[in-house]
Amino acid sequence: MALVVQKYGGSSVGDPERIRNVARRVSRYRAQGDDVVVVVSAMSGQTDRLLQLAGELAELPNEREMDVLLATGEQVTIALLAMTLIEMGCPARSMTGVQVQIRTDSAHTRARIAGVDTAVVRTVLEGGQVAIIAGFQGVDPAGNITTLGRGGSDTSAVAVAAALGADSCEIYTDVDGVYTTDPNICDKARKLDRISYDEMLELASLGAKVLQIRSVEFAKKYKVPLHVRSSFNDTEGTWVVEEDESMEQLTVAGVAYDRKEAKISVRGVPDRPGIAAQLFGALAAQNIVVDMIVQDVGEGGQASMTFTVPQADLKRALTVIEPVARELGSAQVVSDTSIAKISVVGVGMRSHAGVASRMFEVLAREGINVLMISTSEIKVSCVIEEKYTELAVRVLHDAFGLAETKGQEAAKRGG
Amino acid sequence: MALVVQKYGGSSVGDPERIRNVARRVSRYRAQGDDVVVVVSAMSGQTDRLLQLAGELAELPNEREMDVLLATGEQVTIALLAMTLIEMGCPARSMTGVQVQIRTDSAHTRARIAGVDTAVVRTVLEGGQVAIIAGFQGVDPAGNITTLGRGGSDTSAVAVAAALGADSCEIYTDVDGVYTTDPNICDKARKLDRISYDEMLELASLGAKVLQIRSVEFAKKYKVPLHVRSSFNDTEGTWVVEEDESMEQLTVAGVAYDRKEAKISVRGVPDRPGIAAQLFGALAAQNIVVDMIVQDVGEGGQASMTFTVPQADLKRALTVIEPVARELGSAQVVSDTSIAKISVVGVGMRSHAGVASRMFEVLAREGINVLMISTSEIKVSCVIEEKYTELAVRVLHDAFGLAETKGQEAAKRGG
Repeated sequence: MALVVQKYGGSSVGDPERIRNVARRVSRYRAQGDDVVVVVSAMSGQTDRLLQLAGELAELPNEREMDVLLATGEQVTIALLAMTLIEMGCPARSMTGVQVQIRTDSAHTRARIAGVDTAVVRTVLEGGQVAIIAGFQGVDPAGNITTLGRGGSDTSAVAVAAALGADSCEIYTDVDGVYTTDPNICDKARKLDRISYDEMLELASLGAKVLQIRSVEFAKKYKVPLHVRSSFNDTEGTWVVEEDESMEQLTVAGVAYDRKEAKISVRGVPDRPGIAAQLFGALAAQNIVVDMIVQDVGEGGQASMTFTVPQADLKRALTVIEPVARELGSAQVVSDTSIAKISVVGVGMRSHAGVASRMFEVLAREGINVLMISTSEIKVSCVIEEKYTELAVRVLHDAFGLAETKGQEAAKRGG
Repeated sequence: MALVVQKYGGSSVGDPERIRNVARRVSRYRAQGDDVVVVVSAMSGQTDRLLQLAGELAELPNEREMDVLLATGEQVTIALLAMTLIEMGCPARSMTGVQVQIRTDSAHTRARIAGVDTAVVRTVLEGGQVAIIAGFQGVDPAGNITTLGRGGSDTSAVAVAAALGADSCEIYTDVDGVYTTDPNICDKARKLDRISYDEMLELASLGAKVLQIRSVEFAKKYKVPLHVRSSFNDTEGTWVVEEDESMEQLTVAGVAYDRKEAKISVRGVPDRPGIAAQLFGALAAQNIVVDMIVQDVGEGGQASMTFTVPQADLKRALTVIEPVARELGSAQVVSDTSIAKISVVGVGMRSHAGVASRMFEVLAREGINVLMISTSEIKVSCVIEEKYTELAVRVLHDAFGLAETKGQEAAKRGG
């Protein structure tokens, strides 16, 4: 008998028929003798409907009230799922974030979880009921309703699993698991049986959308095994777990890409200390996140500073940067949105040299120019022209042997 | 400076434009220096949408979960109204039933209010904010979300007003106030300036839909002056207040009608003690509410028992009654849905004799046969054939002088 936390996203509970499917799966686990805690998101479309109503009434809706509004989405789902289970003869009980006491700070619309009380949930489980918890929401020290930001239900589920010491946390979604790369652009993409927390963190921050980054951080911190899988079938998904030695035998675990960044170059600034601080300080003050940064010094002590920001923030970033650049005597500020960031990720890089050079070699062979480079202990990212995105993903996927058969990978990864 | 509780029903907050109108009215009161507490219902249509979702998932939805589901309706409205006010520059703060601590018993879907904590609301008011409270919902001693049943927001508002010792409780709705009868069937119907709690109670239970009965009981018990008025204009509505002597000068305050009842006759039962108990005990066991009861004894000691039940319960009532009637040796059970109950109500009846006989006389003059009669201290009700409903309402409205001009009534009622 195990204690399992299951999280179902918005598309998995998007209509009554899907809610019924979730209820069937939950009651099957319960019938096997497992203790089940379910964490659910709002039905898909609900959050957008509420955001639209708010948008019609306030240009800059008050964030405390926004949280009161958005928290109703998950509250609807917990009630519907609980009544469906009860109707099926499976005892269940819904709980809001306030009722569980999912304690957060007071940063409305992007609160961070400080702790999860387990008393109420344990009482429900001990009473033989399925505990159904509203994801995405919590309560601050003053009793205000808070929310964790988009995708926050993943984090709720992992936090609940950590607090309860659950045997595993299953993340149900509309894909079968974590893939070596996006199957939509590379038909050799293969589902991974296992991946380490660190690799998953890099993939999530490099463009893979399957899990919210903070949920993986939480899982890593509290060593909660995550099982990412589809709510539409019974296929095993991908386990996100602690790194083990077998993983290192495969140098690269996946290839990620991101077409949502823009590149800004500030040319002809003096090459002296403090320039970078002035430029990036101005951006940070506007809450604009800078990803990659490259500086190079040309002739006559003139430097050029190139960096990437989210495309959505480009206009704001230019407004901030242009006066600073003028002040620094910059000759030119140019921007480019036709770029893509391609990354290879794998804990094996720690022990295998030459991943970066192999990556450059493969791209060069296809005539793909590398515009910027950034590396970490377990990833290499290159910015290239956007039109080469699919080609780059496919050749790197091949070059690092990611298209190997499942059997081969299982042997290597000990899956 | 006064403390005012305002309640806005579902149609008054039915879309963003109407919510904005409510916000404008609230901020006008605030600008006058009044302390304002607002109690709101779910946006019209929302509750039905949620009920439909529940209906698709469970034939007999669990009532605890139903309350969790339905309570989201008001939570959406409080958040939207609060953010609209804040955007207008009027400080406001929303509160759910749990956050206020509107304490109820645990009778899910029809809970009764046990008390309202005022600490949080007072703190909000003292901070110069408008307090916006979700109507219809509360919390039971175990922390479960409860709801008060349809129309419960009226009761929430009156309970909050009573707990705070508010100067008045304004009930905003889509009509201008309480009328002497339904303006849709009698064009001489006139808005009342004032009416007593007792009269309002009778009118509400006899078919007038303007206020929930329990809210009037609450207002009477705690002497909260109610002001029923339209949210679409600034016209004075109707004050529901304690009875005073001037009211008795007008014998009848209003004429009500109800076409939603059905008549059942059980003929040929023995005229001996215990028969009524057997029949009505069986109905009570099925939670069927019996309204009027008439028993008459014919020849040979054979009695006939006639009573009314809601049309919606007729089928169930007959299923219950028929075996009991057979057992009692009844010759026949017949039912009739083409009936209407017409009532005249007024505290003046306490001191004016002859209202009932005047009513029978007026109906007889029009050839309207009276099928059943029921009286209380301040009302007389007659069951007649349904087709005479409008005619009966109009002739009684005339006969009791309800169409008098406003000036005349004001003089008589001291309004």
